[in-house]
Amino acid sequence: MIFIGERVNAGFKDIKEAIINKDGDVIKEWTRKQADAKADYIDVNLGTASNKPEDLCWMIEMVQEEVDLPISIDNNKPVMLKEAVPVCKKPPLVNSTTADDKKMDELLPIVAEHNASIIGLVMDEAGSPNSADKRVENAGKIFAKIMEYGMSPDQLFLDPIVMPLKFMQDQAREILKGAAQFQLFSDPPCHIVCGLSNISNGTTHKKLINRVFAAMLIANGLDAVILDVMDEELVNTILTADLIMNKGIYADSYIEAFRK
Amino acid sequence: MIFIGERVNAGFKDIKEAIINKDGDVIKEWTRKQADAKADYIDVNLGTASNKPEDLCWMIEMVQEEVDLPISIDNNKPVMLKEAVPVCKKPPLVNSTTADDKKMDELLPIVAEHNASIIGLVMDEAGSPNSADKRVENAGKIFAKIMEYGMSPDQLFLDPIVMPLKFMQDQAREILKGAAQFQLFSDPPCHIVCGLSNISNGTTHKKLINRVFAAMLIANGLDAVILDVMDEELVNTILTADLIMNKGIYADSYIEAFRK
Repeated sequence: MIFIGERVNAGFKDIKEAIINKDGDVIKEWTRKQADAKADYIDVNLGTASNKPEDLCWMIEMVQEEVDLPISIDNNKPVMLKEAVPVCKKPPLVNSTTADDKKMDELLPIVAEHNASIIGLVMDEAGSPNSADKRVENAGKIFAKIMEYGMSPDQLFLDPIVMPLKFMQDQAREILKGAAQFQLFSDPPCHIVCGLSNISNGTTHKKLINRVFAAMLIANGLDAVILDVMDEELVNTILTADLIMNKGIYADSYIEAFRK
Repeated sequence: MIFIGERVNAGFKDIKEAIINKDGDVIKEWTRKQADAKADYIDVNLGTASNKPEDLCWMIEMVQEEVDLPISIDNNKPVMLKEAVPVCKKPPLVNSTTADDKKMDELLPIVAEHNASIIGLVMDEAGSPNSADKRVENAGKIFAKIMEYGMSPDQLFLDPIVMPLKFMQDQAREILKGAAQFQLFSDPPCHIVCGLSNISNGTTHKKLINRVFAAMLIANGLDAVILDVMDEELVNTILTADLIMNKGIYADSYIEAFRK
């Protein structure tokens, strides 16, 4: 599983204030905590704190001063990415494009030039998909486009767009069905990623719902996830589901070994 | 989800002694506990305590004196079933046949005559399957045979045969893949059941592994399970996975409502 740590995000008050005050220590502290919890990527999101490329670059630099993990740049504006991507010491993951041709033709040249990867949200100009078929259709469009730009399947992270169970209960099943089909585009397949916590928006049993849906998605090909890497029960669930899918060799102490 | 409570089983010492001493109170106590935990069927297993049909009938009678739930008769011997099935006040679930023609032709007349259901283990004379394809092939044989006996798909509970993660790590994935295909035999489909705890035999993190595998199986069509219905965390996982599959209507208090 590729763990993408979600915490360096201006949606959280302490991060927003850190950006405004240029307090690098807060960014570094959350970066370190997530790295200690075995994040593979650190997601960096400027939110509404700023729209200046230099602020995004500053966040990335703060993360890179603390760890040598790759960055997931949570921004889809070419003016931002043109400056932020070259600042990354390791090829970043750009989060994200949609299946909109105009969007893809703006973003993919930057991504391809720097050997970066990209998250492809399977929505288009018409909005969010509400069936497995529409998800697969949009995924196919994105897959074809990254091929045009000379990228390989492992540079693409398809996101089936997780919707809230509470408000759109019929969608989870379509998401699972769609993800299962994304795996069939190529061999080896592209990555499948999601922002897991969307499933439990507004619910009472948030963490349980996140865990259960994670296991179900892994059975359908999920191999990357944007999450709270400090949620140990969630991570234990994911480690277990990965073993069940025969990824990694079983040992009685598989959880303890991961945490060492 | 159809919950089949596993606890009235002579594999447990207190049940074995109860059978030998004809102590109906022990049987009744476990029956009540499982009914309170919302078991849909009470599985009844004579184990090595006896091989007399009258002892199996006695167990069934003790259960039926306590609750009016249907029985899952955990026995595959025609001489036993011929006496035990007619004792059941509600059509029982016979646990189980394999895809062996001789076995099916012995058991299915008894099952069909009493409008009972049967668990079909997708193994045959050659032994246990080790691929999804072999599981589907054996499942197809069982499905065709129950049709010959005039039974309907909802009288069949196909069991993909869960194997221990620790010793046969490659099998879980094949089980998931096989189960997904069982669903395609008919519409509406037959049931898919398993003895869940086999997955975690010999492991350190038994309960976690059971929970995660349950969620993954439900994503692939599982709708019945032989389990420890008193394992609240496992049951909560299953309730959540069922909601994610859009079975039952979401309410914030879905867990609390179930327990009421």
